[in-house]
Amino acid sequence: MFIAKVIGNVVATQKNEKFRGMKLLLVQPYISKDGKLQVSGSSVVAVDSVGAGVGECVLFTQGSSARLTPATKDAPVDAVIVGIVDQIEVEGAMLEKP
Amino acid sequence: MFIAKVIGNVVATQKNEKFRGMKLLLVQPYISKDGKLQVSGSSVVAVDSVGAGVGECVLFTQGSSARLTPATKDAPVDAVIVGIVDQIEVEGAMLEKP
Amino acid sequence: MFIAKVIGNVVATQKNEKFRGMKLLLVQPYISKDGKLQVSGSSVVAVDSVGAGVGECVLFTQGSSARLTPATKDAPVDAVIVGIVDQIEVEGAMLEKP
Amino acid sequence: MFIAKVIGNVVATQKNEKFRGMKLLLVQPYISKDGKLQVSGSSVVAVDSVGAGVGECVLFTQGSSARLTPATKDAPVDAVIVGIVDQIEVEGAMLEKP
Amino acid sequence: MFIAKVIGNVVATQKNEKFRGMKLLLVQPYISKDGKLQVSGSSVVAVDSVGAGVGECVLFTQGSSARLTPATKDAPVDAVIVGIVDQIEVEGAMLEKP
Repeated sequence: MFIAKVIGNVVATQKNEKFRGMKLLLVQPYISKDGKLQVSGSSVVAVDSVGAGVGECVLFTQGSSARLTPATKDAPVDAVIVGIVDQIEVEGAMLEKP
Repeated sequence: MFIAKVIGNVVATQKNEKFRGMKLLLVQPYISKDGKLQVSGSSVVAVDSVGAGVGECVLFTQGSSARLTPATKDAPVDAVIVGIVDQIEVEGAMLEKP
Repeated sequence: MFIAKVIGNVVATQKNEKFRGMKLLLVQPYISKDGKLQVSGSSVVAVDSVGAGVGECVLFTQGSSARLTPATKDAPVDAVIVGIVDQIEVEGAMLEKP
Repeated sequence: MFIAKVIGNVVATQKNEKFRGMKLLLVQPYISKDGKLQVSGSSVVAVDSVGAGVGECVLFTQGSSARLTPATKDAPVDAVIVGIVDQIEVEGAMLEKP
Repeated sequence: MFIAKVIGNVVATQKNEKFRGMKLLLVQPYISKDGKLQVSGSSVVAVDSVGAGVGECVLFTQGSSARLTPATKDAPVDAVIVGIVDQIEVEGAMLEKP
């Protein structure tokens, strides 16, 4: 899983029927580097499965495992938010969330 | 999933039989960066499952989940277009679609 | 899927038994950029499932979907050639094949 | 699998129910280069399945195989720690663990 | 699959029970570039399924397909050596193995 910040949302009307009712969020991955969280890599569109919203720091899962939540079962989905991050501790210090 | 623009199409006559009748589109991924959508990464050949066409902004899924649409069931396919993007909102502003 | 040129072949005598009889080709991925096809990324060893040969422009599939051809069923294979590309059209123009 | 150092941990209260009781560790991948282990690539959040702790050098698995441990069965997890590394030998010499 | 050279081995005593008896090798991927094989990308820990040893040029498979060998069945493994490379021919010339 990767840590990410929810930066926006995506609307698609014409779509695969399994996407009906799904909340599609745009997330920006962050990595731990030099003692803080830093933007890293491409923004990803992930399905929300935990009630996450814009501005929150989340954990997301990619690949076939993204279909293993109640919200994404059997859907053609390759990224899903699986948790809202409360704290990240690295080498004894709490990192500031993005 | 990633956001992409459909930039072209690919024709293959000699191919796996599961590809018969599939529409193969060339898509260019875009990411959200510095408040706008920017080209990022390699162009990908994706199967259309939602009636997308050249010039449209779409959402595509990769990996085993790409087989979870009616158009791609049980086919040796690793990328599929699953939606046509209407709008992308980042930090309260609508991003211009590519 | 990605577009690639078949640039060579690989011979392995001591191998997993599911590889017996498989044709292993070395393919170089190409992407569409600045109006033409350009070399991009690492060369990959892919199983041929469509009668492709050195010098041809092909389409290949990666990941678990690579096992979904008759040639690769249940084999420990993560890349397979699924089509021979006839033409690639981008923004109304035919791209020259590599 | 990749070699990594456990650099921290992540706490999420609001999460997919399959994550209840899981220990989420932040790991930094290392690669072998120029005769030593060097930091490489993005930090990853992996589920611990072997009793690993901060500061240890571990082996982690990604993708669908990450669900194949007792700790992660059927969970929407894409990274899991599967071993604690005792030694790494490259070209006859033991590499210093990070 | 990718071509790689086996550069070392990894020992882990505390590990997932499915790893008991597995030989864990450290492999360095190589790609074909400018008429020769060149180091490319991160070293990977792969399970040996064909009797490979340090110094040999091998073929390895990643992802869920890595579980499709007798040595790795149902194990939380994402990389496996599936063949020992005898020769690699590119554009009519044999490449020197690393």
